[in-house]
Amino acid sequence: MADLDAIVREIAEELRARPDRGEVASYIPELARVDPNQFGLAVIDAEGRVSAAGDCDAPFSIQSVSKVFTLTLALGKIGDRLWRRVGREPSGSPFNSIVQLERENGVPRNPFINAGAIAVTDVIVSGHKPREALGEILRFMQFLADDDSIAIDDKVAASEQRTGFRNAALANYMKSFGVIENPVDFTLGVYYHHCAIAMSCRQLAMATRFLAHSGVQPSTGRSVVTRERARRINAIMLTCGHYDGSGDFAYRVGLPGKSGVGGGIIAVAPGKASIAAWSPGLDAAGNSHLGRLALEMLVKRTGWSIFGP
Amino acid sequence: MADLDAIVREIAEELRARPDRGEVASYIPELARVDPNQFGLAVIDAEGRVSAAGDCDAPFSIQSVSKVFTLTLALGKIGDRLWRRVGREPSGSPFNSIVQLERENGVPRNPFINAGAIAVTDVIVSGHKPREALGEILRFMQFLADDDSIAIDDKVAASEQRTGFRNAALANYMKSFGVIENPVDFTLGVYYHHCAIAMSCRQLAMATRFLAHSGVQPSTGRSVVTRERARRINAIMLTCGHYDGSGDFAYRVGLPGKSGVGGGIIAVAPGKASIAAWSPGLDAAGNSHLGRLALEMLVKRTGWSIFGP
Amino acid sequence: MADLDAIVREIAEELRARPDRGEVASYIPELARVDPNQFGLAVIDAEGRVSAAGDCDAPFSIQSVSKVFTLTLALGKIGDRLWRRVGREPSGSPFNSIVQLERENGVPRNPFINAGAIAVTDVIVSGHKPREALGEILRFMQFLADDDSIAIDDKVAASEQRTGFRNAALANYMKSFGVIENPVDFTLGVYYHHCAIAMSCRQLAMATRFLAHSGVQPSTGRSVVTRERARRINAIMLTCGHYDGSGDFAYRVGLPGKSGVGGGIIAVAPGKASIAAWSPGLDAAGNSHLGRLALEMLVKRTGWSIFGP
Amino acid sequence: MADLDAIVREIAEELRARPDRGEVASYIPELARVDPNQFGLAVIDAEGRVSAAGDCDAPFSIQSVSKVFTLTLALGKIGDRLWRRVGREPSGSPFNSIVQLERENGVPRNPFINAGAIAVTDVIVSGHKPREALGEILRFMQFLADDDSIAIDDKVAASEQRTGFRNAALANYMKSFGVIENPVDFTLGVYYHHCAIAMSCRQLAMATRFLAHSGVQPSTGRSVVTRERARRINAIMLTCGHYDGSGDFAYRVGLPGKSGVGGGIIAVAPGKASIAAWSPGLDAAGNSHLGRLALEMLVKRTGWSIFGP
Repeated sequence: MADLDAIVREIAEELRARPDRGEVASYIPELARVDPNQFGLAVIDAEGRVSAAGDCDAPFSIQSVSKVFTLTLALGKIGDRLWRRVGREPSGSPFNSIVQLERENGVPRNPFINAGAIAVTDVIVSGHKPREALGEILRFMQFLADDDSIAIDDKVAASEQRTGFRNAALANYMKSFGVIENPVDFTLGVYYHHCAIAMSCRQLAMATRFLAHSGVQPSTGRSVVTRERARRINAIMLTCGHYDGSGDFAYRVGLPGKSGVGGGIIAVAPGKASIAAWSPGLDAAGNSHLGRLALEMLVKRTGWSIFGP
Repeated sequence: MADLDAIVREIAEELRARPDRGEVASYIPELARVDPNQFGLAVIDAEGRVSAAGDCDAPFSIQSVSKVFTLTLALGKIGDRLWRRVGREPSGSPFNSIVQLERENGVPRNPFINAGAIAVTDVIVSGHKPREALGEILRFMQFLADDDSIAIDDKVAASEQRTGFRNAALANYMKSFGVIENPVDFTLGVYYHHCAIAMSCRQLAMATRFLAHSGVQPSTGRSVVTRERARRINAIMLTCGHYDGSGDFAYRVGLPGKSGVGGGIIAVAPGKASIAAWSPGLDAAGNSHLGRLALEMLVKRTGWSIFGP
Repeated sequence: MADLDAIVREIAEELRARPDRGEVASYIPELARVDPNQFGLAVIDAEGRVSAAGDCDAPFSIQSVSKVFTLTLALGKIGDRLWRRVGREPSGSPFNSIVQLERENGVPRNPFINAGAIAVTDVIVSGHKPREALGEILRFMQFLADDDSIAIDDKVAASEQRTGFRNAALANYMKSFGVIENPVDFTLGVYYHHCAIAMSCRQLAMATRFLAHSGVQPSTGRSVVTRERARRINAIMLTCGHYDGSGDFAYRVGLPGKSGVGGGIIAVAPGKASIAAWSPGLDAAGNSHLGRLALEMLVKRTGWSIFGP
Repeated sequence: MADLDAIVREIAEELRARPDRGEVASYIPELARVDPNQFGLAVIDAEGRVSAAGDCDAPFSIQSVSKVFTLTLALGKIGDRLWRRVGREPSGSPFNSIVQLERENGVPRNPFINAGAIAVTDVIVSGHKPREALGEILRFMQFLADDDSIAIDDKVAASEQRTGFRNAALANYMKSFGVIENPVDFTLGVYYHHCAIAMSCRQLAMATRFLAHSGVQPSTGRSVVTRERARRINAIMLTCGHYDGSGDFAYRVGLPGKSGVGGGIIAVAPGKASIAAWSPGLDAAGNSHLGRLALEMLVKRTGWSIFGP
């Protein structure tokens, strides 16, 4: 698409001027001190052409965006048996909640709320030392993005670990129901570290390509997951990818996507493109304010909504 | 698509043989005595060709499927102001629940749970006598399906009204928060009657066409809603259309859809087709067991999933 | 006790001077326009001596205080079978909530939350016309207080009925579980009317005497309930008598009691006295602010706490 | 009371014959292997006479009974400031629940649910090493029971610690709200160990005497708490002492009391006696089945109910 470059550039310019940028996550100092004036956008079309603008090469903490990739890994490891340990329904909770766990015997509603992502991480940890499991996740990200320089920000991970009492509560709660197999500290340690992977929009858009193209990473031609599994991961992103703002994201943007509290969002236009947007300021629901706006503008201008041309 | 006829016929034949048919809704006698051995499927493609099989012309109680059409009407009447009175997030509740109303000041989570559909109905009732409001809904269905013979099954409506204490609780609860404007009995009366509209798969697939085609009913060329609104209604169907089984429906079928306790399901393949399936037996989540299977088979054979080719 | 008169007088004088009087209930005009500067207190000891002060003869709307007496009547009618339809555990809900009903199949937690009192009223209604049931309740109050002039304030009842959507929600919800036997309108009508009985502190303290004296109204020697049942009603008042402020009332006052949104509170010092206090201003939990203070002072000065001399 | 000996003996004999003994707690092996056929009862009247029968000298794991004594200690340490960190309302939850914590910002409803007792333990831990805090609690029990032989069963404590994921969830959850000050492991370690104190009925009845006698341990004449505080601790036992069976215990027994999952129950007849009953089999609500029955029989025969003579 000849104009894609232009569209991406225009969006970046329009958003740069916006005074409303949301609030940067402040629960750990490492995230709080990120400059809110940054904005990046990268789109990779079916032919592999990259349209990118703004701070599209600045690395940021991918946080919950990593949950898409750990879900992919865990499905590769134990297949549909995963669904005995985590559901795939939207949570419908105003916050990332422990209430639902109590009501449903410690089985988290979906792999994209914190509890669910911890349960998914636990699957990857099983049979490994934490360090090995983490290595596997990191190598998977490097492979998908075709970039060995991707690394974990240990400071972010350490800070999350020091203050992550809510996540420790979720993990211990699931452990009391047998949903977590490994020592809670092992699983949480791996969880905090994969959330602390640092990547740029360009790298994330590259890593996401297989979900836009029937499970195949087009640049290498290598199959990451089956066609059906790619579709299904997209379906879960659509219904559960933005916590309790998932319905609104589907309504406004109309693409499967996943956001993180670091301000990153990935999105998938099936058959057409993979996308990553980033801006550190968050809206009330914890999703990147400008990132979501960028996706809304992009879909409006490209007609990529999955809900109709 | 030349083979669509064949695909639809094959699905109907395969499902006819299935011994597992779910349980027919039994909370009112009028629904309980429906023959569970019925199955119908109708698909209308972009050119207007109808592929239909089985009991595709047998009328059944559309029940919650009507909620898609009342949502469309209410949006036409007051536009985005509707979203002050009903949300658009999945409910995440195991049952059609009153708990969420208490937590969120009487504002239902979305237009497709009972509470939300009652609030939507109330919008249509405002400024009218109940009889007029109901007439408007019925004429809208007749117009969309291009069939003036469509009617309400008064016995079903009367029976629901006699036993609908849970819905009366929801309506009164919302009324206590000012979310319902009209007398509770007026709104509930209209609600029960539009749920009791009787239609066949063929009629429903016809009535749903505008959602598959950017808001335009292709046979007449008349615009029902804007392109954007059609996409947005589809998005809400995808995230909220099957109560607490919405995530699973997205995962397995991959099309926006809406089910009813009468055993009907409508679905939309944007740009390609509108679909209606019917079989009275329900699964544990209250959705038509064979209806959902039919849609899953159809999407697999046509590649219509919105989540990837 | 020779000084009881003095104690009661002193309390009334001290409280008259307090500037903090709470907020008068405002959800219906009939309650909202009551003068907040009123305060009454009446104590009747074991010998029948009445110590009273302030506005102890002014009638007020007893509201939820009536629930103690309808519980007594319903137990008289069907005995322990009542406990199949209502529990006797504190509700633990911040508000008078419908959530608990959903979790526990429509069975309210105790007879003193609105839902429970409606279920208890329904027991009294069964087998009668609403008018007869209401007559029975009113005559019971007149008998207990030995005063035939006690009457219902129809304006208050009518106003509650017009605006009682929350109660209609509770009643319909219970009806959907079969916990309510009679038509919802019948039961609610009787409920609103017995809440609208108007009595003075003196009359209420008299009506409560049987609970302080092993089930016997000492002035007439007539047994109202068995000794054991009197104890048990007191136990329920202690654990459930003040909605979600019951624990605090037990902690501060240390007597079984029941409050109403009209500002009245009855309390029982077993073997020693029955008490009624009234002041229309309510605290955040919906209990009379000065009424509770009066009881706290009275217990401190008399040593009547049931939790230790 | 001359017959108290006889009453206690009779109750022990009658209960020895009962075939229904409930289920022994089985979540850790140390509790599961206790012989269910044991039953003990000890009553100490105002003059210090001990009436005891059955296995009244067999030590058992006091478990949650310890919560009364840690509450007493914590109130002694920081007074009413304690109520900023824990409420005093019944929980109204079917199980020892984390839901309530989410709803109320991590502040547990009362000191006798697990979350509340952990928060109370945390107060005792502050400013100490865990070992010191535990020593303080143990010495307090020895002092109250006037018996230096009382000890902690380390096996039980270790076993609880190994499997206490639910408690770890509660503690971490409260920590995330700042309700827990110390490292979670410190506070939980002390909590598990004070729950694992082993005592006999005789020792427990002795340790409880101060609550029956206005805060003074009558045998030594030493004041443990003020008269008012004794009453208030009794009030909390009455409203919250038996989890979600507190209302039923008040209704049936009519004394302030506290039960533990080891099968022990202490109770207080203010001004008259302190009581401890023990039988390992639990009812559905987790309270000693025969223990509760014993208390019901005792109160019936002595007329000690606080709710009426």
